[in-house]
Amino acid sequence: MKEKAFINIIKNTLNSEYIGDDCAYLKDFGVVVTQDSLVEGVHFSMKFTTPYKLGYKSVMVNISDVCASGAEPKYITIALSLPDSIEEDFIKEFYEGAKAACGNVKIVGGDITGADKIYVSVTAIGSDNGRKISSRSSAKVGQKVVVSGYHGSSALGLKLLADGNSEENEFIKSHLMPEAQIKFSTSIALNIKEDYAMMDTSDGLMDALSSIAYDSGVMLEVDFDKIPHDKKIENYPDWKDLILFGGEDYGLIATLPEAFDGHIIGEVKSGSGIKVNYKNSSVLYTKEEVEKKLFKHFRE
Amino acid sequence: MKEKAFINIIKNTLNSEYIGDDCAYLKDFGVVVTQDSLVEGVHFSMKFTTPYKLGYKSVMVNISDVCASGAEPKYITIALSLPDSIEEDFIKEFYEGAKAACGNVKIVGGDITGADKIYVSVTAIGSDNGRKISSRSSAKVGQKVVVSGYHGSSALGLKLLADGNSEENEFIKSHLMPEAQIKFSTSIALNIKEDYAMMDTSDGLMDALSSIAYDSGVMLEVDFDKIPHDKKIENYPDWKDLILFGGEDYGLIATLPEAFDGHIIGEVKSGSGIKVNYKNSSVLYTKEEVEKKLFKHFRE
Repeated sequence: MKEKAFINIIKNTLNSEYIGDDCAYLKDFGVVVTQDSLVEGVHFSMKFTTPYKLGYKSVMVNISDVCASGAEPKYITIALSLPDSIEEDFIKEFYEGAKAACGNVKIVGGDITGADKIYVSVTAIGSDNGRKISSRSSAKVGQKVVVSGYHGSSALGLKLLADGNSEENEFIKSHLMPEAQIKFSTSIALNIKEDYAMMDTSDGLMDALSSIAYDSGVMLEVDFDKIPHDKKIENYPDWKDLILFGGEDYGLIATLPEAFDGHIIGEVKSGSGIKVNYKNSSVLYTKEEVEKKLFKHFRE
Repeated sequence: MKEKAFINIIKNTLNSEYIGDDCAYLKDFGVVVTQDSLVEGVHFSMKFTTPYKLGYKSVMVNISDVCASGAEPKYITIALSLPDSIEEDFIKEFYEGAKAACGNVKIVGGDITGADKIYVSVTAIGSDNGRKISSRSSAKVGQKVVVSGYHGSSALGLKLLADGNSEENEFIKSHLMPEAQIKFSTSIALNIKEDYAMMDTSDGLMDALSSIAYDSGVMLEVDFDKIPHDKKIENYPDWKDLILFGGEDYGLIATLPEAFDGHIIGEVKSGSGIKVNYKNSSVLYTKEEVEKKLFKHFRE
């Protein structure tokens, strides 16, 4: 999949001011809207997950996008396309998982059709409630780089599943049933007075850092040791890459005047790219270098 | 696909007041939202259509759902899942078709992922603009049954394609590039003062009539000869079934005090089921009989 090239074609074809952030902000309604799909064999395998967990994750990844905008998640629609072999129990469990992920968010509609494989496409709608909505192009020199949530856990969980581990641990749980950072998002939304950038780390922490840096025309400098992570990840090979480039943690990363409810890991500087400081060294990554190293799903 | 059984499970699992109509009405925002998917091999074949026409139809079927609610279509998001073999030209042409279908509607976001086959899931958002929003449970005895658009054309177009016809005629065009009934929807929305039922005929005229009758607890009586259709359809076998049970015409059917911009074909009566009057006879269809006869896509 040439996802980034395709998105550029879409931007050029539509010439739209909306395409760019994970959520589109419809100011006339005071709402944000986002739509994300999960495809069997690409984003998940029924060998590793259950209908309940799939329903849970499908909703949560979209709630996460609304949280990344700073809006309050309110409504969900779900389109399911399913093979003939799917039984009624699958539907019941999937929707029980979806409902559990929703909390106060309401599932208000959707669609159900046939297909060769399981395909889930969820739309989430959030309310701005008069709050400031984020944009990945709004990072400003001097703001702090603030993150919430552990990083690397989900990618390690996927690796453990692919390696044949069946016993569910905290990493596997992070991968199959991620949690959106609603509390962090709300704490920002209720307190922020200036423009700010925010993204979720669905495609990896470095992807989010790089997108914000590039779209805002700034450099982000972060201290690797300050990135929150489960200490046990350090027992696994390549754990530093998992933290930086592993996807699907659904943490949030924002550029803010202060930490609010999160952890400060760095600062917005003038320049371009991402500078990662280690104990005795530092590495400057360009956007292109980040894209080469990013987390891949089962396939791309 | 056990679509109707699955929808009942979803209703029971969610216990939601929203599930039922094609659009969910989010009163706090004054918006309606709908999401429909098109799946390669189920709803379309690239043997018969083009990327441009697929983009056009994917958007139009969702605009049609917004029109069926009486709201004004405003925004679209599009999630595309695509095989690796898809090239940049496909994306460009698909989005050109989508944009052409949009008119004043804006495409504001979406998602793009890998998949084995082409999946398109579109979400459309409309504004109530203070208008009365329809519900399929709002038909009342004494209202007229009013329709817009030709019926049967799309199903005949699909049949012609499946039979190997490659020359595009009006029937094939109806199938590949349907038109939502925006003008009819607007004329109702700007004039209606009472509660009313409205649906599009995406799953067939009789499906819409039957859903309204069942959900409103009434009988709908219609005169077959008054149903608008392309006269040339009468040259084909089973043309009466195509008109009643063929899907994907994206006409609208409503129960109204007067015709506004449409054609009166019958009346809402007390009772249940659908009574179809022919010249010298009449047939009363139950909901179950309608469901058995409904249009099937390439497969279900």
